Amino acid sequence: MTTHVGLRPVSADEARELLEEAGTVVETEMVGLEGAAGRVLAESLVAHEDMPSFPRSAMDGYAVRAADVAAATAAAPVSLSLVGSVTIGRRPGQPVWPGEAQAIPTGGHLPDGADAVVMVEQAEERGAAVEIRRPVEAGRNVIRAGEDIPRGSKVLPSGRLLRPSDVSALAAFGLARVPVHRRPRVSVLSTGNEISPPADPLQPGKVRDVNQYALGAQAASAGCEVHHDGIIEDDPAALEWAVRAAAAKSDVVLLSGGSSVGGHDYTSDVFKRLGPPGLLFHGIAVRPGRPTLVSRAGPTLLVGMPGVPTSAMVIFEVFIRPLLRRMGGEKIGARWSAERHARLATAYTSEIGREDYLRVRLVEREGEIWAEPLPGGSAALSNVLAADGLVTVPADVTTLAEGDAVTVSLFT
Amino acid sequence: MTTHVGLRPVSADEARELLEEAGTVVETEMVGLEGAAGRVLAESLVAHEDMPSFPRSAMDGYAVRAADVAAATAAAPVSLSLVGSVTIGRRPGQPVWPGEAQAIPTGGHLPDGADAVVMVEQAEERGAAVEIRRPVEAGRNVIRAGEDIPRGSKVLPSGRLLRPSDVSALAAFGLARVPVHRRPRVSVLSTGNEISPPADPLQPGKVRDVNQYALGAQAASAGCEVHHDGIIEDDPAALEWAVRAAAAKSDVVLLSGGSSVGGHDYTSDVFKRLGPPGLLFHGIAVRPGRPTLVSRAGPTLLVGMPGVPTSAMVIFEVFIRPLLRRMGGEKIGARWSAERHARLATAYTSEIGREDYLRVRLVEREGEIWAEPLPGGSAALSNVLAADGLVTVPADVTTLAEGDAVTVSLFT
Repeated sequence: MTTHVGLRPVSADEARELLEEAGTVVETEMVGLEGAAGRVLAESLVAHEDMPSFPRSAMDGYAVRAADVAAATAAAPVSLSLVGSVTIGRRPGQPVWPGEAQAIPTGGHLPDGADAVVMVEQAEERGAAVEIRRPVEAGRNVIRAGEDIPRGSKVLPSGRLLRPSDVSALAAFGLARVPVHRRPRVSVLSTGNEISPPADPLQPGKVRDVNQYALGAQAASAGCEVHHDGIIEDDPAALEWAVRAAAAKSDVVLLSGGSSVGGHDYTSDVFKRLGPPGLLFHGIAVRPGRPTLVSRAGPTLLVGMPGVPTSAMVIFEVFIRPLLRRMGGEKIGARWSAERHARLATAYTSEIGREDYLRVRLVEREGEIWAEPLPGGSAALSNVLAADGLVTVPADVTTLAEGDAVTVSLFT
Repeated sequence: MTTHVGLRPVSADEARELLEEAGTVVETEMVGLEGAAGRVLAESLVAHEDMPSFPRSAMDGYAVRAADVAAATAAAPVSLSLVGSVTIGRRPGQPVWPGEAQAIPTGGHLPDGADAVVMVEQAEERGAAVEIRRPVEAGRNVIRAGEDIPRGSKVLPSGRLLRPSDVSALAAFGLARVPVHRRPRVSVLSTGNEISPPADPLQPGKVRDVNQYALGAQAASAGCEVHHDGIIEDDPAALEWAVRAAAAKSDVVLLSGGSSVGGHDYTSDVFKRLGPPGLLFHGIAVRPGRPTLVSRAGPTLLVGMPGVPTSAMVIFEVFIRPLLRRMGGEKIGARWSAERHARLATAYTSEIGREDYLRVRLVEREGEIWAEPLPGGSAALSNVLAADGLVTVPADVTTLAEGDAVTVSLFT
């Protein structure tokens, strides 16, 4: 039987560095505006025109020359010839000459010559004229061309994970097709003779395949295209064949179950046989998830995930999600992540040199948020199901006291 | 020209209450396990069996009867007959009788009779026997059936927005098909003669259609099925026809652009013509987004969104996203939302009775997070593009001072 006594694990920081170097950014593709949100912008969006593209009225009112109405008062209104009316969506057919005004709706194109809009409440139409009762300064109630976003300015940076509201800028600048990174392709496979498909009746001694679906859902939520590549029996030839087929089509292969179970440690050997450059690391000094194994075969990253579901899900969140986001072109750190500050509800002891991830539930007590570490350890699925997020205990911290301030990364 | 002087807006709280009553929960459907994450669970998941379903070894070692090895020491080990070896994924073919042991791998099914597992490091095989050097208490290194999740316990509540990690429970209990609420169907339409499709060359006086795409992306991110139903000209008959067609297929119709532009206020009339029960409210005492209009025609909610993109996006986040999530079956408040506590970087003055939404950028200065209100007002798209989230200024608060503590709801 093999155990992990002989493995020298890398530190969590070393693993992050190795993964940082290993993940290459995928190529780009064009998508329609309707499908752009949630994708990663592949080219910076620079304003190719002014926005707004023409001077617009911010009010319903009258387009005037400010100089004409400088002396207007309620007692002595200025009368201007009403020479027309701006139609929304059209360029005005005629300018506003001195002594003239044109009616204009909100959003209407300011006529040439006009430099301000008098609100409808401060004017009164009298036949072919309009009386203005108050002066306006030049520029008043007008949105200048380029006032919102001037031509040439950078609107959205490349590497941005496009939010729904970012789509407004793509639409406003006429990007009906949007350059984005394609979704990284991820294969998920489970291995082990004891693993049974969820749809099958459960035979004694078997356990249902959890990781293929949980890791698949995590990868999808990280913006990836997911291939469910099935359950592979504990046989080196079958495993090699399955990993080879997955590696041929995917950027990352997540294989779970084979990297720590006694007597079935084929994963590392199979990964080696897939060719150079080979092993990046086997084992990380973390809890849970120590037996994690990462290798590279040509352009494809091969990951041996822990077999225990809770460990596999935690390792995904801590190491694989950032890797996949980076491979997908996203500039990490550009966005405020979802986290909460809380106080730790129970003391915790770790080991020096080991980075630990506590699954915690958040509870509010007397106006303070507390993070309660969940019972059951990594063998318990109930543990991760009840968790709102993770608290990372750094490698150089060995004890956390009850009441200590911690940061909780919320699960997505 | 129409203005909104005559409208009595409802308060933000009244609008929330009216929407709470108006939104009915959509029906359910079955989806495959691969597509369950991000959907809303329609029935509580109750454990129909113990998890694990059988007593499992937590170690590589030997299954024994604890009573047999109670006297074992390194100096005087207890010798047990090695009567077999448990194969992973199979029910053991024979029990462990007194004086016997069986080899067992991690995850193996504990044989009948055995009640503990001795770690491989504390035993030594000698021919057909194994010597045990230390006692173990009953239950040691064994995960009991149901220890993680006992049969009959509630695993996931109905109304839960399924996280990727929740999929682990669905798989573990064999739900290859999962009962979820169907996605609410949302139609988005833009109206206005000045509105131009993003793909077309921009003519003078026209503006590109932003809301149809931004609101569509927001609705998709709220879990909805989105129908892009185009740009409708400012004509009551055309608008009625388009809204009728959208209402026939969708649960919610989001129409933007027609609810505040001077001279083109057809939306309210068209909504009325679609039949009872009719108007819920026209105008909310908020900034931005005051002219928002909500009506009901039979089972369909008709929403007149503000025409200004920033206002439309803010109104969506504050009022429409919670509505759609509730209609989609989600139990709101069950999940910790993404927010940050910050200090307001510049003072702000509001009006009594009006709820305001500041678009803010978060910046870190000397270890503190500051929320900077963005310039430009709701007419500026740059405003919402640069924002990390919203600060709500309640109706009963009129002034916020520089440095005041605020909560920022992060944009998704």
